Amino acid sequence: MERIVECVPNFSEGRNKEVIEKIVDSFRGKDGVKLLDYSSDKDHNRTVVTLVGEPEPVKEAVIASVKVAKEHIDLRKHEGEHPRMGACDVIPFIPIKNFTIEEAVTLSKEVADEIGKLDIPVFLYERSASAAHRENLAKIRKGQFEGMKEKMQEEMWQSDFGPKMPHESFGVVAVGARMPLVAFNVNLNTSDVSIADAIAKKVRHIGGGLRYVKGMGVFLKDRNIAQVSMNLTDYTKTSIYRALEMVRFEAKRYGVSVVGTEVIGLVPQQALIDSAEYYMGIENFSSDQILENKLAE
Amino acid sequence: MERIVECVPNFSEGRNKEVIEKIVDSFRGKDGVKLLDYSSDKDHNRTVVTLVGEPEPVKEAVIASVKVAKEHIDLRKHEGEHPRMGACDVIPFIPIKNFTIEEAVTLSKEVADEIGKLDIPVFLYERSASAAHRENLAKIRKGQFEGMKEKMQEEMWQSDFGPKMPHESFGVVAVGARMPLVAFNVNLNTSDVSIADAIAKKVRHIGGGLRYVKGMGVFLKDRNIAQVSMNLTDYTKTSIYRALEMVRFEAKRYGVSVVGTEVIGLVPQQALIDSAEYYMGIENFSSDQILENKLAE
Repeated sequence: MERIVECVPNFSEGRNKEVIEKIVDSFRGKDGVKLLDYSSDKDHNRTVVTLVGEPEPVKEAVIASVKVAKEHIDLRKHEGEHPRMGACDVIPFIPIKNFTIEEAVTLSKEVADEIGKLDIPVFLYERSASAAHRENLAKIRKGQFEGMKEKMQEEMWQSDFGPKMPHESFGVVAVGARMPLVAFNVNLNTSDVSIADAIAKKVRHIGGGLRYVKGMGVFLKDRNIAQVSMNLTDYTKTSIYRALEMVRFEAKRYGVSVVGTEVIGLVPQQALIDSAEYYMGIENFSSDQILENKLAE
Repeated sequence: MERIVECVPNFSEGRNKEVIEKIVDSFRGKDGVKLLDYSSDKDHNRTVVTLVGEPEPVKEAVIASVKVAKEHIDLRKHEGEHPRMGACDVIPFIPIKNFTIEEAVTLSKEVADEIGKLDIPVFLYERSASAAHRENLAKIRKGQFEGMKEKMQEEMWQSDFGPKMPHESFGVVAVGARMPLVAFNVNLNTSDVSIADAIAKKVRHIGGGLRYVKGMGVFLKDRNIAQVSMNLTDYTKTSIYRALEMVRFEAKRYGVSVVGTEVIGLVPQQALIDSAEYYMGIENFSSDQILENKLAE
C-alpha cells in the first residue's frame, strides 16, 4: 500500500533564478518524489515548493534541498516583504494517504534531527511542537532572522534540535507536521462586512467556536458582498458541512442568508465525501466504494 | 492522459472451473488491462467478469475471451436460472476516465464488428443500439438461445453485425455502451411498502419522473421499513441529490420522511461531489481541485 506525504518547504530566495533552480533540482528525477508545483515571489523574495511522495525519499530530498539552501542563501543579505528566519524558512509535512498525522510528526522529527546535524538550529512547530507556545509558526518567527540570536537566549525559545544559536548565514528553520488545510468561504447576501466578521468570530476556535476553524470577515469588492473566509485546520475533526451550517445559523440573527460558498485550491476527496454523506444521510458508506479509489488500488 | 474504460462481460458458464479459468485468463497478465473481479453463480450457471483498462488492450482481451467462450461453451447443453442467448451473453462498455460515452459506443461497435467476423451474430444495445426497440437488453434476449433462430427471421430483430442466423453452439451476443450505474436507496419511516412503491412510480422515468431513474418499492424485513430502491442510469444527467430530493417531496404527501439512504457497490467520485456541491452551494468548483485527482495526474 503506497504511503504518501506532502511537503511544502519555503526558501528565502525568490529572485536569483540560478539558486532557485538548484534548490528545485533537489526534488527532480528522484524515485518516489513528485514535484507538484513551485512558485517564486520577487517582492517576498521567497520560493514555495510543493512536493508529494513516499516518506523516505521525500525526507532525503528535503534534507538535500536544505544543504543547497545552506550553501547558496545568506540571510545576512536577504530582504523581502515576507517575514523569515532561515534560508530554508519552514518545512511542513502533511499526511495524504496511508500515512497518519502521528507518522508525519515522527518524520518531521527525523528531518529536524538530520538538519540539526548540519549545524542549523531547528524549531518543531504545529503538531510536532514540544510545547503549546511553540505550535504557532508566527510566534516562533517573531523577531525574524535579525532578532533570533537574542530570542534564543530565552529559556522558552531554545531550539529543539541542532545548535543553541542561529547559524551565521542560514539562520534557523521550523519543521513540523500539520493536517491538510481546507480553505472554505461562505458568501452572504449582505455587503456589511461587520456582519461577516461577527459571524467569523463566533464560528472560529479562538472565539469559542469550532476547534479546527480559523476565520475572518472579508469584503468582496467586485461582487459587493461580505464573506466569512475560513481555514479548516483538520477536516477529519471539523467537517466542512459543520462550519457551513454554523455560519448559516449564526447568520440568521442578522437576517442574513448564505448565497454560495467557495472551496479554494486543493481539497482532500474525503472532505467533500463527508459532506455528501451528511446532507444525503448515507448509511454505512466506505470510501472503498468510490470507483476511482478502487482503480488506484 | 490515461483513458479508462470498464467492461463487464457475462459468460454462460458458472460451474466448470476449468472453462471459467480459461475465460478469465484472457484478462490476466495483459498490459493495460486490470481484472477487478469475477464471480460465478452455479444456479445461474453464469460468470460475470469486471475489468478496466485502456480501450485498445481491453478490446483485444474481450475479443480473445469471446474466442475462448466459442471454443468451450455449447449453449445447446446449457441450463441455468438466468436468461441467456449466447456463450458470451452480453458485453457492456462503461466509460470511466478521459473517455466519453460516445467513444465507448464507437469501441463497442469495433468489438461487435470483430465478433461478427468470428461468425457470431451481434446485437448492439443500450447507447449503441441501432433502434429504440433494441436499447433494452431484456427485449433483445426475450426468447433466449432456444427461440433466437425464429426471432431473427423477423425484420426488427436482424443482427447488427455478423451472420443473420445464430451460431449453432454459441448463439448470439449483445454488445453496447452504457454509463456507470449508481445504485441508490432511500429509506422511509414507514413499514408500508405500498407507499415506497407509489413514490418510486412517480420518481422513475417510466412513470413521468426523472429521465435516468429506474426504481421500485422494497420492504426491508430486518428493519421493518420500506425503501425506494433506485438505479441511476446516467448520474451526469440525473444527479443523486435530485433523485433524493424528489423522493423527499413525494414522500411528504403520505406524511412520511426520509430516515437514511444507501449507496450500494461502486460509485464514481463525481456522483458524490455533484451532490456535495449542490447541498453546500459551492461556486465554480472543479474536480481538478481534489487532491487525489491531482496526485493521479
